[in-house]
Amino acid sequence: MIHLENTYQSSPNYDSSFLSKESLRSCFEKIQAEKENGVSGYYHLPFQENSDIFTYLREYHCFLDNLKNLVIIGIGGSSLGTKAIDALLSHQHNRRRLKLRFLEHTDPIVINKELQRIKWEETLFIVISKSGLTIETTSLFKYVLKHFNLLDSKRKNHLLTISDEDSPLFHWSKEQKIQNFTIKPNIGGRFSVLSTAGLLPLGILGYNLQSLLKGAQNMSRYFFKNPTNEILKKAAFLAHCETNYPINVLFSYSSVFRHFNAWYVQLWGESLGKLDYTGQKRGLTPIALIGSIDQHSFLQLIMQGPQNKSVTFLSVEKFSQKPLYIPNIKLKGLESTDFVNGTSFNKLLQLQCISTKESIIAENVPTDSITLDLLCEESVGELIFYYELLTSCVGALLQIDTYNQPGVEFGKKILREKFTHI
Amino acid sequence: MIHLENTYQSSPNYDSSFLSKESLRSCFEKIQAEKENGVSGYYHLPFQENSDIFTYLREYHCFLDNLKNLVIIGIGGSSLGTKAIDALLSHQHNRRRLKLRFLEHTDPIVINKELQRIKWEETLFIVISKSGLTIETTSLFKYVLKHFNLLDSKRKNHLLTISDEDSPLFHWSKEQKIQNFTIKPNIGGRFSVLSTAGLLPLGILGYNLQSLLKGAQNMSRYFFKNPTNEILKKAAFLAHCETNYPINVLFSYSSVFRHFNAWYVQLWGESLGKLDYTGQKRGLTPIALIGSIDQHSFLQLIMQGPQNKSVTFLSVEKFSQKPLYIPNIKLKGLESTDFVNGTSFNKLLQLQCISTKESIIAENVPTDSITLDLLCEESVGELIFYYELLTSCVGALLQIDTYNQPGVEFGKKILREKFTHI
Repeated sequence: MIHLENTYQSSPNYDSSFLSKESLRSCFEKIQAEKENGVSGYYHLPFQENSDIFTYLREYHCFLDNLKNLVIIGIGGSSLGTKAIDALLSHQHNRRRLKLRFLEHTDPIVINKELQRIKWEETLFIVISKSGLTIETTSLFKYVLKHFNLLDSKRKNHLLTISDEDSPLFHWSKEQKIQNFTIKPNIGGRFSVLSTAGLLPLGILGYNLQSLLKGAQNMSRYFFKNPTNEILKKAAFLAHCETNYPINVLFSYSSVFRHFNAWYVQLWGESLGKLDYTGQKRGLTPIALIGSIDQHSFLQLIMQGPQNKSVTFLSVEKFSQKPLYIPNIKLKGLESTDFVNGTSFNKLLQLQCISTKESIIAENVPTDSITLDLLCEESVGELIFYYELLTSCVGALLQIDTYNQPGVEFGKKILREKFTHI
Repeated sequence: MIHLENTYQSSPNYDSSFLSKESLRSCFEKIQAEKENGVSGYYHLPFQENSDIFTYLREYHCFLDNLKNLVIIGIGGSSLGTKAIDALLSHQHNRRRLKLRFLEHTDPIVINKELQRIKWEETLFIVISKSGLTIETTSLFKYVLKHFNLLDSKRKNHLLTISDEDSPLFHWSKEQKIQNFTIKPNIGGRFSVLSTAGLLPLGILGYNLQSLLKGAQNMSRYFFKNPTNEILKKAAFLAHCETNYPINVLFSYSSVFRHFNAWYVQLWGESLGKLDYTGQKRGLTPIALIGSIDQHSFLQLIMQGPQNKSVTFLSVEKFSQKPLYIPNIKLKGLESTDFVNGTSFNKLLQLQCISTKESIIAENVPTDSITLDLLCEESVGELIFYYELLTSCVGALLQIDTYNQPGVEFGKKILREKFTHI
């Protein structure tokens, strides 16, 4: 379960007309239309059956139990979601003791580090690319193919591909008799974590996919049954205050959110930085922090820098791990720190989150809070779908195409030209 | 050696009066005065003798050779600099094969992970805090003291402290006969990496401190001998265009920059987000990315989002590691990716950096480039001191106090109150 609250109404730039029933209703109807017209397929993912995934997990149960490494070859939307969810849930008892590795960076230092000491016999490689034509993914894929000789008939079951149906990678896999799973073409990478692209790796890791999807279903029902829900209200505030608060800070209180933060940055930045239908450059800039650690690097700027930021606090109410306590030790001269003695580190972290939030609110920075009661598949499913819906709503209000990314094509074209001139 | 270039003069918000000799001269003189009047002590660090550090490294040579872990207990400025430099230089042959660990996060998940399987006999713990009163650092310090019983007379040489002279931690160390090293009070945490706070851990790791300092000396001489140098020009552009480009993106091309990015974010954000002398909220917001990976998450926003960002590209000309090549394999249907076949991954990364930069320049985003010829102590020393000087210049031009952080005190006060009401 996740709990939501906000302080937008006390912000100096708040205008109650943003949240009029009509204005929320119009955004709500746009999202309903996106869902019904298939503008993006992600809306339907929580309710998919995924029988191909469950069949694979059942049939390959023993094979998977004997693996030591799961290597994902994929970049951006093909890796960030799985990485985020695994970091949030890796304490769960049902997680297989597999090392999850990512080949996404063309940096040779990372490639060497991830592949050294790996044996193909103990490893499953999953290549994820909608087309198979992503330059980083395909280059790394070729490297792995050669390095481990994975097209040898005895090794082929150590390789899987996930791609759009009818894509170059799909056809190559069929021809090579490599097992392939498909993603619907209308599901973009950054909205794909609840499709096969995320569910298959997460299922292999042992997570309860039904519970993850149940969380997303809860959030979907909450949204589509309430035309004045909290997601719409938050989106309305952020979209209408685009000029006053062009930067949105996500302040997550626990190291387990590190990769979720990166997933959020991609979802937000790549979806919302767009030309609108009049050709104007629009968008909101995401920044993701970890508390309490980033209180020592970024908080000063939020407090006394320009008031161009809204801040979202993300925290967990109760961790399931055994608590660690600050010892009841007095050190001569350092007694002014004794007030935390005997407290658990978790309690300290929680109170740091609350105190920082109060200090930020006192500076009139608009804030909101997302609190997960505990970290489990269901609450993580809610959180993921919450952010996807929020992104869609802000995009609808900015009148942009939330689901494409035309701005990155030019750099790819230049890269190709550079190579033809080497 | 590092090379600098920029495209500011073609930016739509460029005004040549920013860079008039008089305006640069006035900033230059402010910085000279800061140096001479001891406003911050960091200006003198490249030229310090550090004989206490060298004596320790010589006397404890055998002790250090037998260690397996170096644990730094410190947060923010007490950890980010060492972490950044170690990540940039860890490939060096002279680096001791010590595992460097940080206790900075009060998150019990991290504490457990860092301390499990550590034996005190193989470990040196260094507590770094200017006062000893940082709540995270002291709580973690107490935890370690108890967990490893470090005040036992046989174990005391496995603990060092680094603090301001005459601080509570300094006096506690003297009384407990724990070896203590000092930082000058006028050197703030985020400007302290070339003080004992960074040099001692880096020296223990085996790095050549003289070369690191030599790099910083080069940059210091370059700056102070040229009243119209490139650092001043860049600072003038950024400070004068504060409203047009409130966000500064550092796009670093190699995973080894990950922690350098975090160091930059703290240095920039905490130094420059301030009330100016008229009480107005000023500042520039840092965002740090890793290429090519973040081309798949943030580039779209830079290209087609609001034009509120300047972008700095940071890259390395030549890596000393053995190159890895993209195999010359053709995969049916995927031939459109073959243009990179046979290239080294490093070359691909370099050309991705250049292509992305060209595509961003075409959108009229002001950019500049910092290129290190190779990663070694000297070039890293230049890079560190370059950024410190740049930060000081921007702060001087914004007419703020670059070296304090008053905005974080209020949250600390609230935290203390929360505890008295539990």
